[in-house]
Amino acid sequence: MNRSKKVLLFLIFHLSFSFFLRSESGHQLWLRPVDAHSVTVELGGRPGATQRLAADVLSHSWQGDSKATIKLRLIKDRSLKPDGFRLHTGEIQATSETGLLYGAYEYIRRQRMGKRLDGFLSNPAYQHRILNHWDNLNGTIERGYAGHSIFWRREAQPTVTESDRALWREYAAANASIGINGTVLNNVNASPEMLSLAYLQKTKAIAEALRPFGVRVYLSINYASPMRLSGLKTADPLDPKVQAWWRDKIAEIYALIPDFGGFLVKANSEGQPGPMDYGRTHVEGANMLADAIKPFNGLIMWRAFVYDPAGGSDRATQAYDEFMPFDGKFRDNVIIQVKNGPVDFQPREPFSPLFGAMKQTSVMPEFQITQEYLGFSFQLVYLAPMWTECLQSDTYQMGVGSTVARCTDGQLYPQTHTAIAGVANIGLDDNWCGHPFAQANWYAFGRLAWDHALSGEVIAEEWIQQTFTAERSFVDPVKTMMMASREAAVNYMMPLGLHHLFAWGHHYGPEPWCNVAGARADWLPSYYHRASEEGIGFDRTVTGSNAVKQYQEPLRSRFASIESCPDELLLWFHHVPWQHRMQSGETLWNELCIRYDRGVQEVRSFQKVWDRMESFVDSDRFKEVQSRLRRQARDAQWWKDACLLYFQTYSNLPIPTYIERPVQDLEEMKQIKFDWTHHN
Amino acid sequence: MNRSKKVLLFLIFHLSFSFFLRSESGHQLWLRPVDAHSVTVELGGRPGATQRLAADVLSHSWQGDSKATIKLRLIKDRSLKPDGFRLHTGEIQATSETGLLYGAYEYIRRQRMGKRLDGFLSNPAYQHRILNHWDNLNGTIERGYAGHSIFWRREAQPTVTESDRALWREYAAANASIGINGTVLNNVNASPEMLSLAYLQKTKAIAEALRPFGVRVYLSINYASPMRLSGLKTADPLDPKVQAWWRDKIAEIYALIPDFGGFLVKANSEGQPGPMDYGRTHVEGANMLADAIKPFNGLIMWRAFVYDPAGGSDRATQAYDEFMPFDGKFRDNVIIQVKNGPVDFQPREPFSPLFGAMKQTSVMPEFQITQEYLGFSFQLVYLAPMWTECLQSDTYQMGVGSTVARCTDGQLYPQTHTAIAGVANIGLDDNWCGHPFAQANWYAFGRLAWDHALSGEVIAEEWIQQTFTAERSFVDPVKTMMMASREAAVNYMMPLGLHHLFAWGHHYGPEPWCNVAGARADWLPSYYHRASEEGIGFDRTVTGSNAVKQYQEPLRSRFASIESCPDELLLWFHHVPWQHRMQSGETLWNELCIRYDRGVQEVRSFQKVWDRMESFVDSDRFKEVQSRLRRQARDAQWWKDACLLYFQTYSNLPIPTYIERPVQDLEEMKQIKFDWTHHN
Repeated sequence: MNRSKKVLLFLIFHLSFSFFLRSESGHQLWLRPVDAHSVTVELGGRPGATQRLAADVLSHSWQGDSKATIKLRLIKDRSLKPDGFRLHTGEIQATSETGLLYGAYEYIRRQRMGKRLDGFLSNPAYQHRILNHWDNLNGTIERGYAGHSIFWRREAQPTVTESDRALWREYAAANASIGINGTVLNNVNASPEMLSLAYLQKTKAIAEALRPFGVRVYLSINYASPMRLSGLKTADPLDPKVQAWWRDKIAEIYALIPDFGGFLVKANSEGQPGPMDYGRTHVEGANMLADAIKPFNGLIMWRAFVYDPAGGSDRATQAYDEFMPFDGKFRDNVIIQVKNGPVDFQPREPFSPLFGAMKQTSVMPEFQITQEYLGFSFQLVYLAPMWTECLQSDTYQMGVGSTVARCTDGQLYPQTHTAIAGVANIGLDDNWCGHPFAQANWYAFGRLAWDHALSGEVIAEEWIQQTFTAERSFVDPVKTMMMASREAAVNYMMPLGLHHLFAWGHHYGPEPWCNVAGARADWLPSYYHRASEEGIGFDRTVTGSNAVKQYQEPLRSRFASIESCPDELLLWFHHVPWQHRMQSGETLWNELCIRYDRGVQEVRSFQKVWDRMESFVDSDRFKEVQSRLRRQARDAQWWKDACLLYFQTYSNLPIPTYIERPVQDLEEMKQIKFDWTHHN
Repeated sequence: MNRSKKVLLFLIFHLSFSFFLRSESGHQLWLRPVDAHSVTVELGGRPGATQRLAADVLSHSWQGDSKATIKLRLIKDRSLKPDGFRLHTGEIQATSETGLLYGAYEYIRRQRMGKRLDGFLSNPAYQHRILNHWDNLNGTIERGYAGHSIFWRREAQPTVTESDRALWREYAAANASIGINGTVLNNVNASPEMLSLAYLQKTKAIAEALRPFGVRVYLSINYASPMRLSGLKTADPLDPKVQAWWRDKIAEIYALIPDFGGFLVKANSEGQPGPMDYGRTHVEGANMLADAIKPFNGLIMWRAFVYDPAGGSDRATQAYDEFMPFDGKFRDNVIIQVKNGPVDFQPREPFSPLFGAMKQTSVMPEFQITQEYLGFSFQLVYLAPMWTECLQSDTYQMGVGSTVARCTDGQLYPQTHTAIAGVANIGLDDNWCGHPFAQANWYAFGRLAWDHALSGEVIAEEWIQQTFTAERSFVDPVKTMMMASREAAVNYMMPLGLHHLFAWGHHYGPEPWCNVAGARADWLPSYYHRASEEGIGFDRTVTGSNAVKQYQEPLRSRFASIESCPDELLLWFHHVPWQHRMQSGETLWNELCIRYDRGVQEVRSFQKVWDRMESFVDSDRFKEVQSRLRRQARDAQWWKDACLLYFQTYSNLPIPTYIERPVQDLEEMKQIKFDWTHHN
């Protein structure tokens, strides 16, 4: 063995050094320093930067025998996908250096979790596992609750500092540790300036910081960029000058960033420009870009989040109606990016009917890690159960077992590209995500993007052990709390299929009564809850918007019948009389009351769980979680009171006296305009 | 029988007429119209206005046989005191027309309660049963939470309207129905203008409205009135010009109001002028006035609520220290008016040690009906249990059984005058008292002033039946709620003997941390709670202020020992280590947490009780109580969180996890300055 390949790594490198300095602020995420044993790492092949990082990971966190040697081996193996790896005791095999890096992180994780190593083979479920940053070039983040952007800031011209680079490397390491290999650096509501040379040069610097960690950069584009940036008279995708502009721009990008990932496009959606501005279709718009970027193996991720402001039809049906006619017409390097549900990241939605329905088009799920509709970073809501609920939903599009996951990961349809996106919850806050437990959602997204068969519980277990401690008397209750947290949020916000009861604009607190003069109907809660003296809920059966027809049988019939529709989605699909008898035996009204109250009680129980954990957690993180849970308990109560007292004005039924009473008056709540983004 | 004495009264009179008009606003108090049977009322003697009112009461509310006759008889009977009466079926006997009026109200009340009538004899416990209105001449009310004054308003010169007179008659009827026979019309922090001719003439009009109902008027005076009103150079009580001024003024008053009751004086207290301003004593100051008013049989009620702003001694000891040396030196028409506790109307205090200790001086208890320290009119707190707790407290001053009641009602000491005062909670609000249940405190004060042996429960039973309904499924749970409400308030505000943790100035919300630069120490919570890392509470034993020495044995020893001091007063008398083992077996800290939490849970249980009562109560009163209970629940939570989190900074102990967690952060609470008088 070449001695030069045998490197002993006892030194703490720049990355790990910063971890030690920052103590327990939460900045180290799930990569907190451990009491590592010494280990000999043997590098393989001609080690590049990525393999050296893998060696760092192993030597920095080794939990095994302190006289052990571990060998990194680059091999050829058709059972391994490019990012996959195989573990043996003392050896990590992969076909690429990124595979070795992923293998190293997994090796350490399995050591810490006490899991078997021998013969463990792992390939990623999706080729492209991508964060979407909704970061604006002025540094703000749309729907961001953890400070300003780690990439951009308000300045005359974009600059890059050494501390920027250090932070980006930390960010990249965290992503690599959970398998994320791509990141869209700017908001889907994109500024044309993003494609100016100055910003592309900063993008190049970011790409260089991320590259050793296997993370490629992507950009969101503004479809009118040729006009806004270069003064073209049109952005019509069929215009040769426009096509040439994009070809040139893409060439310019790839000259700077040879492994650039591609574009994310929000077109003709919520006021953004797009091909329809010029009488062209989504297909024409997307394919033009796809053709231009094809020579560089770039991707076009085209969002299906479209709904017509003027359209009288159900907003939940519009993406399907608009995109299904195009199935099979997109280039193979276009992927249609579809939000998990048909409306907009609500606490609970059924899966989008586009999943599985588009059989000749690459489709990728878009999840929202940032908690726009789930309590911002003020509330502890662990989202893995929501995402697995979507991924494991059976679309029945290719028979039983046609889950959303299998419809998007290439198992059922021959997609050239498979991908999954998560809207990031990352900002400049010292702990990256605002709420210490919001880190778990970043973690869970990466882990599910790698392996969508993982359970939320397994992921929570991993995250807790790495982020806090492996003590069972901490892990078990905290894991139970995390697993219950999303359903609790559904209960205190919008149980039984209710959706979009949020306050105007910011989407934090409840305003089921919200009525803004001149507002789009489909931005108002009453559009969705349709409460009346007769009942509540959105009739999406054949007597209503008939959204159910977009689902494959037997789902269509199951959703269409008030008897077989699951309680959890009842008011999504049906307008239901207040006295309707639920599966619980309770009337709808009573069940609604029970659910809201349960949500409040659950948050209070989380407070008790956490307060019992004080001895296991450093004081800073303990207090931060404690304080946020207090706010969550207040806000849950506010949700319950607002919704029950408001809906009671329609049901005219008493709140059953076996549940805890409201502590607010409806009229007072209506008059108070909370600044929910701060305190209440 | 003279036919002219036999009057059939079927007509609805002005009083009762207004009752019908106002429906269920709460304006009718406990005198709501009932489905009366017809009755023949025979008047006795030469019936005056008061006897005719008694007849009105009977004919208006008769619940007995509809062919019955009831006879009003003025008799001579040494077993009857001037206001006393004896009931027989069909007959009411009294030595005075006011006795007949009281008898009529009691007769009806007993009919409604289904109690026996025959041979029921009743004499009042106190001769003078007096409301103290803290009404300012500009119409505001100090510590009033039910609107502006019913007597005074902001105007250039006092005027009297017919609607004023109607309201005063309603007020007088309500008082007569519960035996109240005197009222002080203005604030103890008195304006000298009160004694100007214009205001005396309005006082005369008020007196005329109240007189038929047996209610005499009194006035609070400003001790510096001779200077402020007439330009005298001094108000020295030994100055002949001052004495002459008062003699003239009193003669002027009695010329207008022959049955004028007398003066209430707050002298040398909280900045008010008094004899000490001229080097004279309370005795010299009070006796001068007593001498001047003696020819008219007037009373001087001299308040013992004094504490020295500069004094280093315990505020709780100062009234006793200042007044005890004067025992036996006051004229027999001076009564020393003593607040129930030694500090200031706190949710719980021990009784004032002056009760029973002043054996040669007339002493009268002063209770506070308005809820200055008990949640304003926002909170449901039934005060009868607090007052009976005081009245039945054994002072041991004349051996076992020397209760505060017996020490003040003439049973133990030969007082020329006996009296009791309650600071009124009455204002221009349509329902008089703000909170519908605050009416119960006005009612209970009157009933206890008449008969201090009545239990709070019996009084609540009467009040509920008259104010709402006699249905047992309403009366029983509501009575239980009322009876629990004061202890609940103690629990969520200041359990275990804590006191004066209120926010600065307004005395509503909690500010145990309150620190106002330059403020009198004894107006700040830390003066009272004395929390430190060692413990909490005010050491009033011999190692501290030695306030315990002002109590008679065996109380002195009982209070002085941390072992025998009742838990309820522990922190009043002792500075107690956080880990002290309570009678419950819990540590002090845990017990404190449990009590605060219990208070919150109790208010929530009141909400449930009330919400179950919806079908028994008119919608307006139901909703008003419901809304106020919601606020009470919020405020109870705020109290608990504020106090526990603040005291935790001293105890450094965890809040036991079996109780519900705080939902506020201490630092946030400290920063928010609530306008508690409106909403929070």
